[in-house]
Amino acid sequence: MTGRTGFRLVTKSPDGLARAGELVTPHGVVLTPVFMPVGSQGSVKALTPEEVHDTGMNMLLANTYHLYLRPGISVIEKAGGLHKFMAWDGPILTDSGGYQVFSLAGLRRVSDEGVVFRSHIDGSEHTFTPELAVRYQESLGADIIMAFDECSAADSSYARVEKALQRTHRWAERCLKAQQRRDQVLYGIVQGGVFPELRKRSVEFLTSLDFPGYAIGGLSVGEPKQVTLDITAETASLLPEDRPRYLMGVGSPEDLVECVSRCIDIFDSALPTRVARNGALFTPLGRVNILNAQFSEVQQPVDATCNCYTCQTFSAAYLHHLFKARELLAYRLATIHNLTFISNLMRRMREAILDGTFVSFRDEFLANYRPTDEATRLDQKQRWFQSRNASN
Amino acid sequence: MTGRTGFRLVTKSPDGLARAGELVTPHGVVLTPVFMPVGSQGSVKALTPEEVHDTGMNMLLANTYHLYLRPGISVIEKAGGLHKFMAWDGPILTDSGGYQVFSLAGLRRVSDEGVVFRSHIDGSEHTFTPELAVRYQESLGADIIMAFDECSAADSSYARVEKALQRTHRWAERCLKAQQRRDQVLYGIVQGGVFPELRKRSVEFLTSLDFPGYAIGGLSVGEPKQVTLDITAETASLLPEDRPRYLMGVGSPEDLVECVSRCIDIFDSALPTRVARNGALFTPLGRVNILNAQFSEVQQPVDATCNCYTCQTFSAAYLHHLFKARELLAYRLATIHNLTFISNLMRRMREAILDGTFVSFRDEFLANYRPTDEATRLDQKQRWFQSRNASN
Repeated sequence: MTGRTGFRLVTKSPDGLARAGELVTPHGVVLTPVFMPVGSQGSVKALTPEEVHDTGMNMLLANTYHLYLRPGISVIEKAGGLHKFMAWDGPILTDSGGYQVFSLAGLRRVSDEGVVFRSHIDGSEHTFTPELAVRYQESLGADIIMAFDECSAADSSYARVEKALQRTHRWAERCLKAQQRRDQVLYGIVQGGVFPELRKRSVEFLTSLDFPGYAIGGLSVGEPKQVTLDITAETASLLPEDRPRYLMGVGSPEDLVECVSRCIDIFDSALPTRVARNGALFTPLGRVNILNAQFSEVQQPVDATCNCYTCQTFSAAYLHHLFKARELLAYRLATIHNLTFISNLMRRMREAILDGTFVSFRDEFLANYRPTDEATRLDQKQRWFQSRNASN
Repeated sequence: MTGRTGFRLVTKSPDGLARAGELVTPHGVVLTPVFMPVGSQGSVKALTPEEVHDTGMNMLLANTYHLYLRPGISVIEKAGGLHKFMAWDGPILTDSGGYQVFSLAGLRRVSDEGVVFRSHIDGSEHTFTPELAVRYQESLGADIIMAFDECSAADSSYARVEKALQRTHRWAERCLKAQQRRDQVLYGIVQGGVFPELRKRSVEFLTSLDFPGYAIGGLSVGEPKQVTLDITAETASLLPEDRPRYLMGVGSPEDLVECVSRCIDIFDSALPTRVARNGALFTPLGRVNILNAQFSEVQQPVDATCNCYTCQTFSAAYLHHLFKARELLAYRLATIHNLTFISNLMRRMREAILDGTFVSFRDEFLANYRPTDEATRLDQKQRWFQSRNASN
């Protein structure tokens, strides 16, 4: 059912795991499973709103933390909200800033009241509380807003994760109480790290508060991939069927397929756009690095099966040249390709769920798609963690 | 008349100076006066070919020097030429590499045969001769190609400029002799520095070779603006009426207006796109710097009179934010605006010439448009000279 929650479960795959649904928002209906590209600073890096739309993406994510620091919440409020400011008329989800603030190692002090942190831009001191996180998100005006939570690092002890979880739960109540706008929905965030017992307690507590949607947070932060998948599956299986499940921070093609088959409806990740700017392009056989010399004279597009502007217009040789020459157009063309690849993948998964052929679709995709190997993946993630406050 | 030269003079302003014409090329007719944006490396920085077209630009310039070094002439030849490689179906003009090679201070040896120089990318040694410059340009396949010339620095002595001029003339003859493709036109380049006597000799010699078009080179390289204007006017007055005149390297709004009223038909410059990427945007009152704090909350577009995508879609406050946050979209939106401003300016100048109202149009434009002051202009130019081999 939709109504207050804005979500309707349409059907499930025969194994009962993959779900097709509809998310009704003030800015249109979104078909799920859905992937949201990241526009941290009010811009999906290198693309215009029209280009984002042309890739097939319908909903995007923006970061309260980044927008709070720059240009400042009041600037966007005066512009009439984030949709108007960035000229995007589709649905937007804002995160609460929790994840970003807790990534500022050494730059923060946490108490029950909230978090005092220093700006990664100029070192100035700021405070986020659950109430402020909600107020800022109401000013930004996204369709879906997120509770303010305390994230734990991947290697945190049970005791630490448990303590953060308790605080996250108290903050979830305060977020609900602080909410004033009724045209936005507020999702709760399940925490609990890699501990199934804590995840279960988190689901039990948060569902008792009856959120219209639930995110699974604190995963894909450096733990082994099998752990991500197992915790995702276990947590999702505990969540109410009629509410959307949003797995935060997951976005590689193989992970999207794996997690759609673990009952997830909504995803976001900077990965497809970030790796695009480094020259890593998705193909049905896996990622390729367009900077490799093998592409220097290839007259065909990077992915001959792709319907994106980049592949329909330019050869791999031209894209290789643009990357070598560090031309700004390179980053855009690669971003367009990767987002189109992901949106096609999401659409095909939905069609397969509706057709009852999801399991064979999944198996075939994963048999062809060579994932980035685990060591490279963790290394890239680690380097990203270290650099991302500067640029997301 | 058109025919072999591809140029038809349509009319002149009542004072006999500003000219409206048509340039017929294998890739379409170009109305003059015309400004060409620069796509040194086979890309007008930050824009797709469609976006370049949407700004109203019809013809662009690419650099033989840059494309020779990267991706290499043979890569583009195998792709079927530069038009196909970069997916631009309008006219292209390639420069010969002369200007770039002579800008590599300390990295070259000149003889009558040609120039031995070192790549700014990897220091490798290369040779350009008039014959090779023509051969490379025939492989690239532009509609208009340029003779290989020796450029002198702005502060060169009469004797040095004279010596370079004599070599330029011998090389012009060799370029004509080397030309094989008959679907391209080869323009001669008038040199002679800031010395009217040498400019006159250069025009006399080159016109005796009967080129289908003439460029004025070696200006806008650091000399005072009044000298640029005076030498341009004197040189242009000596050139045959029925051939197009191309002033190389000029592209600020005020200079375009001044030089159209000095009989120039064709212009190119990296200035509009380069300053855009630094946040300098053209308006009818002069350049503004979008990074200035005064724009942080301006809900109107940068130029309320502008019909470009940027001004039609986004506020100055959003553009200010994108520049502050170093979002890639910033550089594109600013480039779209500046090129649209220039193409509107060229179109309005042509309409005024056809209407017989050019002089009043020019006077009104210059009365409103506050040019960048001379000291700032020369300083920016100097800094650009120093940095440009890295990025153009």
